[in-house]
Amino acid sequence: MKRALYLGRFNPPHYGHVEAIKYILAQEDIDEVIILIGSGEKAYYPKNPFTGGERVEMIGAIIREYFDISKFYIQAIPDSNRNSIWPAHAIDLVPPFDVIFTNNPLVQELFKDLTTKEIRSIPLNNRKEWSGKEIRRRMLENENWREFVPPAVVSLIEKYDGINRIKKINQDDY
Amino acid sequence: MKRALYLGRFNPPHYGHVEAIKYILAQEDIDEVIILIGSGEKAYYPKNPFTGGERVEMIGAIIREYFDISKFYIQAIPDSNRNSIWPAHAIDLVPPFDVIFTNNPLVQELFKDLTTKEIRSIPLNNRKEWSGKEIRRRMLENENWREFVPPAVVSLIEKYDGINRIKKINQDDY
Amino acid sequence: MKRALYLGRFNPPHYGHVEAIKYILAQEDIDEVIILIGSGEKAYYPKNPFTGGERVEMIGAIIREYFDISKFYIQAIPDSNRNSIWPAHAIDLVPPFDVIFTNNPLVQELFKDLTTKEIRSIPLNNRKEWSGKEIRRRMLENENWREFVPPAVVSLIEKYDGINRIKKINQDDY
Amino acid sequence: MKRALYLGRFNPPHYGHVEAIKYILAQEDIDEVIILIGSGEKAYYPKNPFTGGERVEMIGAIIREYFDISKFYIQAIPDSNRNSIWPAHAIDLVPPFDVIFTNNPLVQELFKDLTTKEIRSIPLNNRKEWSGKEIRRRMLENENWREFVPPAVVSLIEKYDGINRIKKINQDDY
Amino acid sequence: MKRALYLGRFNPPHYGHVEAIKYILAQEDIDEVIILIGSGEKAYYPKNPFTGGERVEMIGAIIREYFDISKFYIQAIPDSNRNSIWPAHAIDLVPPFDVIFTNNPLVQELFKDLTTKEIRSIPLNNRKEWSGKEIRRRMLENENWREFVPPAVVSLIEKYDGINRIKKINQDDY
Amino acid sequence: MKRALYLGRFNPPHYGHVEAIKYILAQEDIDEVIILIGSGEKAYYPKNPFTGGERVEMIGAIIREYFDISKFYIQAIPDSNRNSIWPAHAIDLVPPFDVIFTNNPLVQELFKDLTTKEIRSIPLNNRKEWSGKEIRRRMLENENWREFVPPAVVSLIEKYDGINRIKKINQDDY
Repeated sequence: MKRALYLGRFNPPHYGHVEAIKYILAQEDIDEVIILIGSGEKAYYPKNPFTGGERVEMIGAIIREYFDISKFYIQAIPDSNRNSIWPAHAIDLVPPFDVIFTNNPLVQELFKDLTTKEIRSIPLNNRKEWSGKEIRRRMLENENWREFVPPAVVSLIEKYDGINRIKKINQDDY
Repeated sequence: MKRALYLGRFNPPHYGHVEAIKYILAQEDIDEVIILIGSGEKAYYPKNPFTGGERVEMIGAIIREYFDISKFYIQAIPDSNRNSIWPAHAIDLVPPFDVIFTNNPLVQELFKDLTTKEIRSIPLNNRKEWSGKEIRRRMLENENWREFVPPAVVSLIEKYDGINRIKKINQDDY
Repeated sequence: MKRALYLGRFNPPHYGHVEAIKYILAQEDIDEVIILIGSGEKAYYPKNPFTGGERVEMIGAIIREYFDISKFYIQAIPDSNRNSIWPAHAIDLVPPFDVIFTNNPLVQELFKDLTTKEIRSIPLNNRKEWSGKEIRRRMLENENWREFVPPAVVSLIEKYDGINRIKKINQDDY
Repeated sequence: MKRALYLGRFNPPHYGHVEAIKYILAQEDIDEVIILIGSGEKAYYPKNPFTGGERVEMIGAIIREYFDISKFYIQAIPDSNRNSIWPAHAIDLVPPFDVIFTNNPLVQELFKDLTTKEIRSIPLNNRKEWSGKEIRRRMLENENWREFVPPAVVSLIEKYDGINRIKKINQDDY
Repeated sequence: MKRALYLGRFNPPHYGHVEAIKYILAQEDIDEVIILIGSGEKAYYPKNPFTGGERVEMIGAIIREYFDISKFYIQAIPDSNRNSIWPAHAIDLVPPFDVIFTNNPLVQELFKDLTTKEIRSIPLNNRKEWSGKEIRRRMLENENWREFVPPAVVSLIEKYDGINRIKKINQDDY
Repeated sequence: MKRALYLGRFNPPHYGHVEAIKYILAQEDIDEVIILIGSGEKAYYPKNPFTGGERVEMIGAIIREYFDISKFYIQAIPDSNRNSIWPAHAIDLVPPFDVIFTNNPLVQELFKDLTTKEIRSIPLNNRKEWSGKEIRRRMLENENWREFVPPAVVSLIEKYDGINRIKKINQDDY
């Protein structure tokens, strides 16, 4: 049996991520999943409003609600700020793994060129609304976003006063 | 109920850490524990032989064996390389917490000066042998170390070929 | 009596800053002011043409001309390049302070979330022309800018050959 | 006789660079040339697709084909990420030199302000097509680019599977 | 008339520094002094117990007590962590200066090799006791240290609870 | 035919390095050699007195004198300051290579764990005197060192005023 790495920025986590994790666990040869939260040190940016720690807590709530937590590792890691070394940076900070699940063409290219790890894609559904970018836009413009995000995540975002944060950081015009 | 932060370098994790975690979970007001693995980006050093990811895997094995994993968050984070900002660095990367459990006088001082977090100590037993430094010395000098480390951790160290690694990196005389 | 922190990038300092400092010193409970020059390590950029040291010298000239220098601390500090830790970064590098004066919504949010410092706003006048961005645009396009900047600052910009510098760095098309 | 520094990003190197190097070596007082490949640590970006090491290999192939290699030093160096110190950063990493050849107004300004090095410009020909930006655009859009690049460089780009890389990294929409 | 740069770590500032500043201001050709506090980002270390900001406050108290503050610039700057670029790093962050006063052979060598700045030495008195190292040792071992430090600095160290800090951080055995 | 990577710090280069390079080129399957100068950004330290650029010039002089320069790539690269990613860091900055020649047990371990590169050792002679550490000690203590270093390197060290530099930086007692 193999351990999978699944990565994203999760700003915030939404049902698209839930579906992706279900898909990964449904693979016959996969029994454990590492969820790597990228750009973990970036927060309070319009594209990255939540801290790494908040994203760990949100993903943790999702895993505890929908999955068997004993099969998971959840970690936020900072950016390496250098593409060519990113795979080595990630390999260093998370438990050993066998397969990386990602649709990101850059990440696929970087792993292909530095490592011999197996790379697999994930089918995506409802890409228009199950999208961090779209959900952040809706939060900013007071449109509905709660239906795209699991209830436990909605509660945490309210605990963080996340909608106000997003509105404030979008006023910054540096 | 409160969430605790417990931190260490865990090079490697041993029974002293198991006892400390038991102590923390036995506190009436604590129901969740974040285990923060410091110096997560340092590895292949005589004082820090294991990678952050390996230490996540070893701690994960301990938690799965002795505790209820659903109460835990386990993360390796890199050093901030700057004392004064370390508490902010840690707060940023792990889920929100209420109490920090540490006997490290520097960490206590840093949290006291920057934050209003509650700080508590942990009673220590068998400090002579339940010590990363002592266990690494025994690994290097072919003395017995396995009795101080949970069996799941012994297996992982063997999987990493850890004893050979420790011997090789101690030959480096840069 | 309290010590205030006032921050900006000051590229270059102008009469808007002079008015803001007057406002801060006019507060009954404030007797000392730290002027923190942010992005101190950034220079020779279209949005940040002057070095941290040049900005210290320009602010110093303003304080010596309009205020009682013995009430001030003036420092350029580098960016932390990480929002969540910025308040800890600033607190580490400048003397202890009680109140932060800023209209920047991001800075307000960061201090609110990490510290218990008091945060106050500053009334702004003449925002259209007392603006670093507008003054730099006028410098670049050979329009009048000298009336928005104290004479001592005009002299220093000429000493630095600042208008030529701004024109040259705006040619860079990397 | 003097040693020259010639710098660029060389993404990829093309005939414009060959002509520039010919021009530098044709100067009466120059007998050795350091070729400094900037942004050496940046790769897999649409504007910077090739690694520093690949660019060293491509420039090396050009020098071996068109020039006397014994007159050259070829090095990729990382960005300093800070304009004011860039000249000191470059001076530290390459052999001592006397003259810097560059048309970049920012680099000229930085060297003028920090050092006493002589700065000279290079006449440019065919700027529309002998341009890294134009060549990368042609690679991405399946237009002809091979005629602007020496054959040895074309071969290396094919060895790196460079066209596919450029297409993949341009799909990244982070 | 010239502006001088005087640098130190000032952990803590003592009468030896007061004498050095008097010496510099007594030079006929010097009318302004920049006091650069090095290792400004290092704190809570046995060799570097005070924060950059605390050291700015302590030096500020000395200058206000013994000198004419309008002749001074006081700044804490972080280490560059790279010797060869240190002079460029310092030049970038402080106002332009003409002469550097230092007895440190490394700093002398670095300025000589990168810049054309004039370098001068300072006569030292009572080196045995007017020494940061000796004063920190006395603080740690409960010996007398107050007589070597101006009263305003003693008060600030007490405000910071500095003796306890030094004792705590010396217990750290990482 | 294969390309080899040979690495060292070369502070300074000596006859031991010349012999090692001869050995590498004598291998039947090797026709090109990359000489990677590590810790390229470290200089003016007792253990690392020469700049990366000076070491490139010294190695360049050796290669031009004893070998066919067209078979070589010579580069100084900065430390990665993180063991686990060092192989990815080096692979990124130098041309593609097949075999790494090193006796350093740490480097061997790092390459074995991250990459599939072939690793080979180099026979060493006269280790007592063909040693950077021993040569620096002799420079500092005015003992004979010139016989262990090729004449072109001796000349360059004299051009850099290297003996004085080593003596001065060893006086620093920070």
